[in-house]
This record gives sequence, C-alpha cells and structure tokens, in this order.
Amino acid sequence: MNDSFSCGPPEQEGIHIFAIPGIPLVQPGDDLAALIVEAAGSAGLSLVDGDIVVVAQKVVSKAEGRLVRLADVMPGAEALRLAEETGKDARVVQAVLDDSNAVVRARGGVLIVEQSGGWVCAHGGLDHSNVAPEEEETVALLPADADASAAALRASIEEMTGAAVAVLISDSHGRPWKMGTVGVCIGCAGLPALWDQRGLTDLFGYELVASEECIIDELCAAATLVMGQSSEGRPAAVVRGYRRPAAEDAPARSIQRPAEKDLFR
Amino acid sequence: MNDSFSCGPPEQEGIHIFAIPGIPLVQPGDDLAALIVEAAGSAGLSLVDGDIVVVAQKVVSKAEGRLVRLADVMPGAEALRLAEETGKDARVVQAVLDDSNAVVRARGGVLIVEQSGGWVCAHGGLDHSNVAPEEEETVALLPADADASAAALRASIEEMTGAAVAVLISDSHGRPWKMGTVGVCIGCAGLPALWDQRGLTDLFGYELVASEECIIDELCAAATLVMGQSSEGRPAAVVRGYRRPAAEDAPARSIQRPAEKDLFR
Repeated sequence: MNDSFSCGPPEQEGIHIFAIPGIPLVQPGDDLAALIVEAAGSAGLSLVDGDIVVVAQKVVSKAEGRLVRLADVMPGAEALRLAEETGKDARVVQAVLDDSNAVVRARGGVLIVEQSGGWVCAHGGLDHSNVAPEEEETVALLPADADASAAALRASIEEMTGAAVAVLISDSHGRPWKMGTVGVCIGCAGLPALWDQRGLTDLFGYELVASEECIIDELCAAATLVMGQSSEGRPAAVVRGYRRPAAEDAPARSIQRPAEKDLFR
Repeated sequence: MNDSFSCGPPEQEGIHIFAIPGIPLVQPGDDLAALIVEAAGSAGLSLVDGDIVVVAQKVVSKAEGRLVRLADVMPGAEALRLAEETGKDARVVQAVLDDSNAVVRARGGVLIVEQSGGWVCAHGGLDHSNVAPEEEETVALLPADADASAAALRASIEEMTGAAVAVLISDSHGRPWKMGTVGVCIGCAGLPALWDQRGLTDLFGYELVASEECIIDELCAAATLVMGQSSEGRPAAVVRGYRRPAAEDAPARSIQRPAEKDLFR
C-alpha cells in the first residue's frame, strides 16, 4: 500500500467534466470510437493521457446492434403473467426475460431483474427511448458484455488519438429506498473499479474497516451531470484530472455482489 | 416545462470540482461555515454565485456535537442480541438503535437500519473513524436534521461571502447488489433534489416515463472523487459550473422512498 494514500486520495487540482458535443445519431454498425474522436476534434477538444471517456450505454447498444424488434417477439406464459402483474407490454417483458438470469421483483409498474450481464436493474436496462421513429417498435438491450465494449472503445480511441485514456460505459439506475436514478457504470476499461481503502488509516490512525469506494460509479454519476438522461445529443463526456488510485484495472462486473452475499434479493 | 429542457440538460461548458484545502480539524461547537470560508480564502478560492458547496457529514456531525461516548451507553436486550448476530460491539449497536426507526437487515457483520432521519444505511451512518484519539470511545451520529444543517450552512456562507451558493451534505453509503460505497446526499439547501424529466421527450418525441434524475446524489458522488472517504483533511469541496434544472429547491429527505412503496424492506 502506497504511503501517499494513507490519508485520503492523492492531492489533486480538481476534476473537470465536459460533454463531447456534436456526436451524430448512432446507427447499428457505426464505429462509435471514431464518431467520438471526430466529434471531439471538431469541437477543438483533444483527448490527453489520463482522460476518462464516459459513454452512454444507449449509443453503445445501438452501435453494437443490440436491438430487438417487438414485432419479432412472441410472449410466453411467464411474460404474459408478469405483464399482467406490472401493467407492461408483454412483448417488452419477454424481451427483458430473454436477456435476464432471474426476476428479482415484479409489482405494480416495476419489473426488476438480474440482467444477463449480472446487473440488477429495472427492465434489465432495456428501453425504447431515443430509438428513431422508423424503429418505433424496437427496444435496445444492454451491451452483451459492456466491459468488453469498454475495452474495445478504449483500444480504438487510444489508437486514433495516441492518448492513454480509460473508458467507462454508463447507465442510469434506480435504487431501493430512494427516488430517482443516478448514473452508474456497467463497463470499465483502464481503471480500477473499486478503491480499496481497507487497511488504510484515517487521520488518527484508526483503520477504516468497510471503506471500498466504488469510483467507477462515482465517475459515471459525475459524467451524467453533463450528459443528462434524455438525449442522444450528449452521449459521451470526459472526466479530466482525476488521479486514479494505484491499483490494478478491474472490470465493472467485479463490483457485482454475488447473490449469495446479497441481503436484498 | 421550459422548452430549453426538452432535450437533455441545459447546455453547459462543463463542471469543475475541487476540494477546499486547509480546513482545520473540526471540534464540537465550531462555526463550520466560517472554517470553510476562511480556508477557501486562505487558498485563494472565492466562492461565486451558483457554486455548490459539498460538506462531509462527519464534520457537520462533529461541529453539531452529535457524538456519543460509548462509556455512557448501556446496551439493552435487543442490542445484545443484534451484537451477537452481527459480531459488533453491543454499545455501538445500542447507539445505532437509539438513532434508528427500524432495523432493516442484521446479518454477519452487517446491521442496516432506517436511521431516525429516514436514511436506510449501514450502522445508521454512525462511525468512529476520524474521531480524535482522546475521544477514542466516541462515535459520531448523523446530523439530527441534515437538511436544516445544510440550510444553516448555506445562510452563513452566503452572509459571509455574498455568494448565492447551494450546500449539500454528503455521506458514503453502500448499496444492495453492488460492492463498494458511493457518495450520496443526506442534506440539501438551494437545489432541487430530483430533476423530474417525466413529461420531457427525447430526440424523437418519445416520452421519458421513468426518468427522475437524482442530481443531489450525483453531485455528492462527484464531490467524493476529490474529497475521499478516509480523511478529515478534505471535508469540503466545490462543484462549479453545474447549471441547475429550473425547479424549486427541495430537501434531501424528499428523495426518501416511503417504506410502503419500497420493494426491498
């Protein structure tokens, strides 16, 4: 453990967070990394070493073609039952189930599942907003492996720009106990997911027993403040100036609490 | 609904987040607003209109004297039983229960309660880290009314600086389903707590059904990236450049989901 971390995070001059403007509407098959790099260039923004590029899940899913046409979905018995319970379109429920490991809660208007990538979230992260009019009956699933998506974007961005960046893929999730959604991370490349402060001591030498800070969720929450949730107009942002903890990179999936250690499912 | 909000958040040049360095150790009875303003001044930082000052719960609790000497705590039957179940100090458990409305989960090492202020969190937010050595047997409770604490700090900072600021009080909470803690907001003055995007439409005119963004939690998560969790050395940070939604101010407690609408307790 590095001594310079024994009392809080490394000294830093502050963090700057800005959206990358002018990214065009993303279509299946698009080279998303190229769209991001070109938009940044057109806006006079140069990516630099240490930048963290946060990309909204929705455009990653679209670029990867993770779209389901509802006309192609035939709801089964469980979907019909859950649609009845939750008041949802049975085809949407079937699309959620097809991309889920387990139903966690289904009640009045709410369907919370463990999505196939391991994320516990409403509707398995599926949504139909921001899909073009001609695709009205289409829904977007989460990327099949958002950590791999982040790694691929990172490699492409580094190749195009020469800058050693990290890439995070963000989504907006609700929480038990509290209203509203917050930006969270579902894919990570180039950063540790958690900053493990266990074993560190505070100002007075007490050991911090239960402090693992989920920096990737905090970074995505921060980026969501400039990206918003309701538009593809700002599907990417840069967090600049964050001094990462000295720990190995880890995928976002490493923050998933195993079901058997979870007190709430 | 303002048209300029119909497609994502207002245009903004980006957000800058920086810690206020040099805040001294806080003692019960201290004028925390004065300590923050003086430290900012000594560091050459001027607060300006629109700045969001994020203050760590721990120093608010200390300034307000929300401390409990464990020597004064006599654990009752429930505390003894829960201490046995969770492997915790029975006096600490009693201190948690004394400041709680209900126990939500108690199992191996974990005691999750609805704290008296309505926050569902581990140990009711109580901790003993960062308490001075001579107070070794002392634990800090959450502020009795963190929204009122935020309002008082805001009024004092505005009076001292003339700047129209918002004040958020942050804590670090764990989450079901995911490892690690993230910065969250437990007290708010001068901002809406939620950005209600229901009724807004996305790029293609679809209505966003379930989008209420909890901006105060995102702001506290962002500030935690520069404040850290393990030190009183950086108990306050400034978020500059965030353009708030056009909505009325609301206290942090307004984001608490009523227990009867909560699927997870």
